[in-house]
Amino acid sequence: MSGASHTPGTPSLDAPEPPTLADIGRAAGSLADRAVFTPLVESPLLNDRLGCRVLAKAEVLQRTGSFKFRGAFNRLSKLNEDERRMGVVAYSSGNHAQGVAAAARIVGTSATIFMPKDAPATKVLNTRRHGAEVRFYDRATENREEMAEALARERGGVVVRPYEDPDVIAGQGTVGLEIASQARRMGIHLDAVLVPCGGGGLSAGTALAIAGASPETRVYSVEPQGFDDMARSLAADARKRNAGGGQSMCDALLMPEPGALTFAVARGRLAGGLAVGDAATRRAMVTAFADLNLVVEPSGAVALAAVLAEAIETSGRTLVVVLTGGNVDPETFSEVLASEEWPPA
Amino acid sequence: MSGASHTPGTPSLDAPEPPTLADIGRAAGSLADRAVFTPLVESPLLNDRLGCRVLAKAEVLQRTGSFKFRGAFNRLSKLNEDERRMGVVAYSSGNHAQGVAAAARIVGTSATIFMPKDAPATKVLNTRRHGAEVRFYDRATENREEMAEALARERGGVVVRPYEDPDVIAGQGTVGLEIASQARRMGIHLDAVLVPCGGGGLSAGTALAIAGASPETRVYSVEPQGFDDMARSLAADARKRNAGGGQSMCDALLMPEPGALTFAVARGRLAGGLAVGDAATRRAMVTAFADLNLVVEPSGAVALAAVLAEAIETSGRTLVVVLTGGNVDPETFSEVLASEEWPPA
Repeated sequence: MSGASHTPGTPSLDAPEPPTLADIGRAAGSLADRAVFTPLVESPLLNDRLGCRVLAKAEVLQRTGSFKFRGAFNRLSKLNEDERRMGVVAYSSGNHAQGVAAAARIVGTSATIFMPKDAPATKVLNTRRHGAEVRFYDRATENREEMAEALARERGGVVVRPYEDPDVIAGQGTVGLEIASQARRMGIHLDAVLVPCGGGGLSAGTALAIAGASPETRVYSVEPQGFDDMARSLAADARKRNAGGGQSMCDALLMPEPGALTFAVARGRLAGGLAVGDAATRRAMVTAFADLNLVVEPSGAVALAAVLAEAIETSGRTLVVVLTGGNVDPETFSEVLASEEWPPA
Repeated sequence: MSGASHTPGTPSLDAPEPPTLADIGRAAGSLADRAVFTPLVESPLLNDRLGCRVLAKAEVLQRTGSFKFRGAFNRLSKLNEDERRMGVVAYSSGNHAQGVAAAARIVGTSATIFMPKDAPATKVLNTRRHGAEVRFYDRATENREEMAEALARERGGVVVRPYEDPDVIAGQGTVGLEIASQARRMGIHLDAVLVPCGGGGLSAGTALAIAGASPETRVYSVEPQGFDDMARSLAADARKRNAGGGQSMCDALLMPEPGALTFAVARGRLAGGLAVGDAATRRAMVTAFADLNLVVEPSGAVALAAVLAEAIETSGRTLVVVLTGGNVDPETFSEVLASEEWPPA
């Protein structure tokens, strides 16, 4: 798990140590009065229709409307005084931007976020409303990671990566810790937890937490079809890239391959990777609207979509699906509502 | 508060005793593992825009998608064995129907619900999915109360009234008890609680609970303009009817006058009644979508609408708005999303 260019046994800045269960516990402590301990939402009617019990971990109710606040805040809570003075830099087309911006305001630092020129206006506006400076880049011609690194070097600030960071993974992992604690309090056994997967920060963190806190529960990553790099990497037990050329409405889940760090945490802990098409994702968004009264963005709905599509055995099981985010514009939402059969069967 | 036709001091079947704070406490006990203890949801960005702190009591996440389950279950949990065998009868065009149907299934009785012929297909379908028998009536030519009473007499069953019932009011009052307990746990002082008002069951119950548990907090009913019978009744300190001829998209809040029992509980406990137009209600639905990721039906959004419209002094205050229900069809929802400025200012 260490890079090739440094002496074995020497800690490398390029290959940080993976987080531990204890790190997730500490992250939960930091987040206690900052993040929302989100509810598990369910609908007996939906359960009847599906023949299983589905508990939706409603991260759409998280601060900034997605789980991304957890990792961002956990990372930013560890800035030293110098770093706080210099400000942080991040790149994101969506939810990580808002998470970093909101966390920066709370810890008292400034945030500069590189966003693509074609990012949804709402996400740009909300990132600014959280107090961050937004800089635009061109997806086709510019490398956002390099731009962010260059700015951070220039300022002496820190880049807050969306998933390749142990503190970010530990922060996202608090989702898994909460799920395990909620199940215990409800006195129920969880057969499986399904987690949307882009770069793998949330699925890795959740798998780590559940492996520690509820080891008989199987954790699955869920990706859009054509972008199932985590599923293929888990199957091959080595990082694999997407073939490319895929199309998906899940704009937050289009990473080409799992992160080195996220994959190191996820392998052996994720039971497998599932993939769903846009049709199931649409149906999941409509189901969340109809049966749960929750607004879920396409990328946030893929775990529920995997249950609707019976991507794993569901009959008689108790399953948690993480609804990761709800930042969707009204045109997309209405278009999805109009395209699906009503009421959802 | 007793009827004119019976001896003073003699309990009358026509004029039941108003519920007490202790009744609400007992209702909370009955509901403990049945109803959802719904979260208070907030958005720091929304708070910034409004210049006040708004906590949304998300009854859209309640079992059956509205607060109505609380009162229905509390009433049905008190059926004796004979009554349970005979089944219950109710009338409703919407959320009370689903609340009674779901509660009936849990306590093991049958439910027959009179619904108007033109009730939304989704509400009819969901009422049936909860296991109830639906019978239709014509709003223009038939009296649903009489039809329900006649059927109940014929069967020896019980009519579950939507609000003129002490057990129903006590059940709805658990919303107020939860709000007070949540505020205590958060260590915050609540200036006001705003509650959508149709027949007055929820506003009366909530006012009763808050008067006991958080007496410095002011509770307001919120009604659609043209249907502000509770507001006018409170102002006159006597039950007043709507003038008639009003138009509103809030189909669940169109009662002509407060119930005798609900008004008896509400008077002196509600600080006043507010009224909002459809424009503010639409804005509230879009705000709940954009800032809270919650699906709210028109009638469920009027308390938030009152804050947006500054129907009371809000600056610097901490306010709870009850989002009472989310059972809205996709056409209406999309139409509202399309009609409003985006993003909401």
